[in-house]
Amino acid sequence: MLLAVTILGNNSAIPAHGRHPTAQVITTTDELLLFDCGEGTQIQILNYRIKRSRINHIFISHLHGDHYFGLIGLLNSFALLSRIQPLHIYGPAALKEILHLQFKHSDTRLPFELTFHPIEKDGLILDAKHYTVECFSTRHRIECKGFLVREKKNLRKILAEEVRKYNIPPSFFPQLQKGEDFTDANGVVIKNERLTTENRKPKSYAFAADTVYDVRLAEIVREVDLLYHEATYPDALSEKATERYHSTTKQAASIALQGSVNRLLIGHFSAKFENLEPFVTEAREVFTNTDLAQEGVTYLL
Amino acid sequence: MLLAVTILGNNSAIPAHGRHPTAQVITTTDELLLFDCGEGTQIQILNYRIKRSRINHIFISHLHGDHYFGLIGLLNSFALLSRIQPLHIYGPAALKEILHLQFKHSDTRLPFELTFHPIEKDGLILDAKHYTVECFSTRHRIECKGFLVREKKNLRKILAEEVRKYNIPPSFFPQLQKGEDFTDANGVVIKNERLTTENRKPKSYAFAADTVYDVRLAEIVREVDLLYHEATYPDALSEKATERYHSTTKQAASIALQGSVNRLLIGHFSAKFENLEPFVTEAREVFTNTDLAQEGVTYLL
Repeated sequence: MLLAVTILGNNSAIPAHGRHPTAQVITTTDELLLFDCGEGTQIQILNYRIKRSRINHIFISHLHGDHYFGLIGLLNSFALLSRIQPLHIYGPAALKEILHLQFKHSDTRLPFELTFHPIEKDGLILDAKHYTVECFSTRHRIECKGFLVREKKNLRKILAEEVRKYNIPPSFFPQLQKGEDFTDANGVVIKNERLTTENRKPKSYAFAADTVYDVRLAEIVREVDLLYHEATYPDALSEKATERYHSTTKQAASIALQGSVNRLLIGHFSAKFENLEPFVTEAREVFTNTDLAQEGVTYLL
Repeated sequence: MLLAVTILGNNSAIPAHGRHPTAQVITTTDELLLFDCGEGTQIQILNYRIKRSRINHIFISHLHGDHYFGLIGLLNSFALLSRIQPLHIYGPAALKEILHLQFKHSDTRLPFELTFHPIEKDGLILDAKHYTVECFSTRHRIECKGFLVREKKNLRKILAEEVRKYNIPPSFFPQLQKGEDFTDANGVVIKNERLTTENRKPKSYAFAADTVYDVRLAEIVREVDLLYHEATYPDALSEKATERYHSTTKQAASIALQGSVNRLLIGHFSAKFENLEPFVTEAREVFTNTDLAQEGVTYLL
C-alpha cells in the first residue's frame, strides 16, 4: 500500500512567518485522510494541489483552535462544491455540536452524508480495507488524541518454483497468500512456509498531536516507520514547555529514540521562532534521523 | 478625520485564484474597525501589516461562513497575544453562542473584555467620538446587515480676518466652531456665519454586504463617498444571481447610479471566474467611477 504524509501546517497556535496551524494529509492507495484542520487548511489544500474530493476521513486531535478552526470552512466548501461522497469525521464529541450549530445558523444542508464518530476511548477507530487507524491519549491541557495509521499485514509472497514443484492449483493461491497450508488429494499437508515467504513489514505512521513530554508515548509508537512529534520549543525552554503541556526538540527526539522508531518529524513550532534550524540541530543530537516537518513536503513511508 | 478602507478579501464563498473570503479593515483616526472576518483574515492581517491591536470593533454582516469563519481564530490569537484592550463585536445574536461554545471546549479564557452587541434592528449601532456606524438590512438568503460609517459633522472653519475685526476672544473659538453666535459686551450679536465657514462635508462609507438587487439600497447609501456593493456574477448570470440572493456587476452599478454615490467598489466575486476585468468593464457601462475591490489595496475617502 502507498502511505505518505503531506504537511500542510507546521506552526503552533498563532500563524506566523508564513507558517500555518496543524493539518496533515495522509495518502493511502485508495483515499486521503486528514489529520487535524487548522484555519486556512482548505487554502493550503489548494496551494499544494491536494485532491480534496479524495479526502474521506478527517481526524481531529483536540479542540484547541489551531487544530480544527479550518474544518467548518472545508465542510462548507465541500457543500458548495456539491460533494456527494460520504465523509467521516472522528473527534471529541463536542465537535459535532460546534459544527451543527454553525450549519444551523448558516442554513447549510450538506449534499453528502456526514458521519460523526465521537472518540470515546483509545484503540481502533477505523478499520479500512488496507489500513487501520488507532487513537491514543496524549497529555495536554485539554483532552487530546494522537493517531496511528498501520498498513494491514501484507499477504505472503508465493514462491513460484515451489508451487510448480508441488503442483499447487492457482485457485488455491489466495489462501496460500493468507498463510494457509495446502492439503493434496492424498491428504498430504504441505506447510505454507515451504510455498511462501514473509512479505515486507507493514508500514506505520504515528501522529502524536499536542503533548507534554510523556514517556508512555515511546511504547505506543514503538517501531513505527515515521513519528510526528511536536517540538513547540527549543530545549532551553523545557520549563515553559511543561507548564504549557508542550514538548521540546530533545524531548521529541527522546521519545523517538526510546520508541526505536525509524524516522522522526518535528513540528508545531512556536510563533516566537522564525529560524527553525536550531530546532532540528538540537533534536538530532538525541535522534539522528530527525527532520523538520516542512509545509508542502510529502514524506513517503 | 482619516477614513480609509483596506480590502482583505474580495472573493465569495469558496477561496480560489489566490482570493480570500470577505473582510475589510476600516481605518479611522483613532482606531480600526473590521467589517466581516472570513477564514484566513488573521493571515491577511499579517500579510498586509495591519496593526491588529488597533482593531477595537468588529462587525459581522451575517452567518454565512465566508463572512465569519475567521473570527474565532482572530479572537483566539488576541487571547494568545495577551491583548488587554477591550473589544466589541456587533453581529447576529447566534454568533455569541457559536463563539462561546468554542471558547468553552478549548478552555479559553480571554484576557481582555469582549462585549457582544447583538444586532436587533436597523439604525445606529456605534456612536464613537469622530464617527458613527449604522446598520441596514439587505435582502439575502439569511438575515444580513450592511454597515454605514459616517464621519461626524466637521467643526466650522474660523475666518481669521473676521474674528480679528470683531475682536472675538480666542476662548470663544470652540463655540464658534460649533456654530454659536457671539454676543459682545454691549449685547450686540455677531452672527456665526459672519465669523466662520462650513467645513468640508463629512465622509461616509457604505458596505452593502451580501444582497440580491434591491433598489431600496440606493436610498440607504445615498451620496456616500464610497459604496462597496457585491457583484458576485457578471450580468449574463442575473437569473442565477437572483436565485442565490446575490447581485451582478450592472445591478451593483445601478444602485451606485441611483444612489448618486461618488465611487463604487465591486467585490465578492464568484470562484468560477479567474479574470475579473470583464466585471469592472460591465459595471462601468452603468456607473463610470467603479473599481474592483482589490485585496491589499487601501481606498482613501
